[in-house]
Amino acid sequence: MPLKLPALDAAAVPDIRATGYPEPFRARVAARSKKKLGDAVGLTQFGVNLVTLEPRGQSALRHWHTREDEFIYMLSGEVVLVTDAGEQPLRAGQCAGYAAGSKDAHHFINRSDQPAQYLEVGSRFDDDFAIYPDDDLMWVVKDGRQVTAHKDGRLY
Amino acid sequence: MPLKLPALDAAAVPDIRATGYPEPFRARVAARSKKKLGDAVGLTQFGVNLVTLEPRGQSALRHWHTREDEFIYMLSGEVVLVTDAGEQPLRAGQCAGYAAGSKDAHHFINRSDQPAQYLEVGSRFDDDFAIYPDDDLMWVVKDGRQVTAHKDGRLY
Repeated sequence: MPLKLPALDAAAVPDIRATGYPEPFRARVAARSKKKLGDAVGLTQFGVNLVTLEPRGQSALRHWHTREDEFIYMLSGEVVLVTDAGEQPLRAGQCAGYAAGSKDAHHFINRSDQPAQYLEVGSRFDDDFAIYPDDDLMWVVKDGRQVTAHKDGRLY
Repeated sequence: MPLKLPALDAAAVPDIRATGYPEPFRARVAARSKKKLGDAVGLTQFGVNLVTLEPRGQSALRHWHTREDEFIYMLSGEVVLVTDAGEQPLRAGQCAGYAAGSKDAHHFINRSDQPAQYLEVGSRFDDDFAIYPDDDLMWVVKDGRQVTAHKDGRLY
């Protein structure tokens, strides 16, 4: 019998491959898909996504958030967590968290030959910015919304 | 090799059996333990707990929150989700979410003969109250902090 809200089966939630990144960064996250579980059950204060990272996929550009706490919990497969301190492999039952404003930029890379799955949780604040120390990308506010720019200010 | 922050192994985080409930409610959640993963990685905006519910255990009294969104994702075993609409069994890969102020009170009961595990996520607001429609319990503010009371106002 199908579940009824407030419950649902994650398998019933669509996979989304959207990204706000312009090229050449968009291609780096092409092997990432997300099921927006928190949105699907009507939550607004934080997002909860079930993420699948195919082999060679990246979770995001390496980044940190000015306002938002982030948390991830590994469900299956293996990813490499990259931070300023280097790399660590993470598997099912392991997790990581990034407090708002902590400038240790992070992302996941799937260097294995199997898909990896994890849950990601992040607060939602309209005035949050993601910062990318390794890449020529930043978010700037134009006409009231965030758009992508080069670090010299030229819009993508 | 042990993980280093911002990553950690959930198994390395202590199990906590604390509850703010007075008796006779305390006994209902005695078969529940929580690993406070979000706290362990330094997050403050929301909590993320890895919860183990032994057979016959309950997640909480049936309740809803005035200010805080809540989300749960089943990892293993089976629980019964109880809401105003009745009961639904939930297993690994299934989830539920409760938006702040939605008055459909909810809790989990483990009616199986195996432990069940799930992740629970909840926002944190000092002015949040939990409301219990089925039980003679409410939270009232005394000397700046929330304490438990009967619904006629007598403190526990």
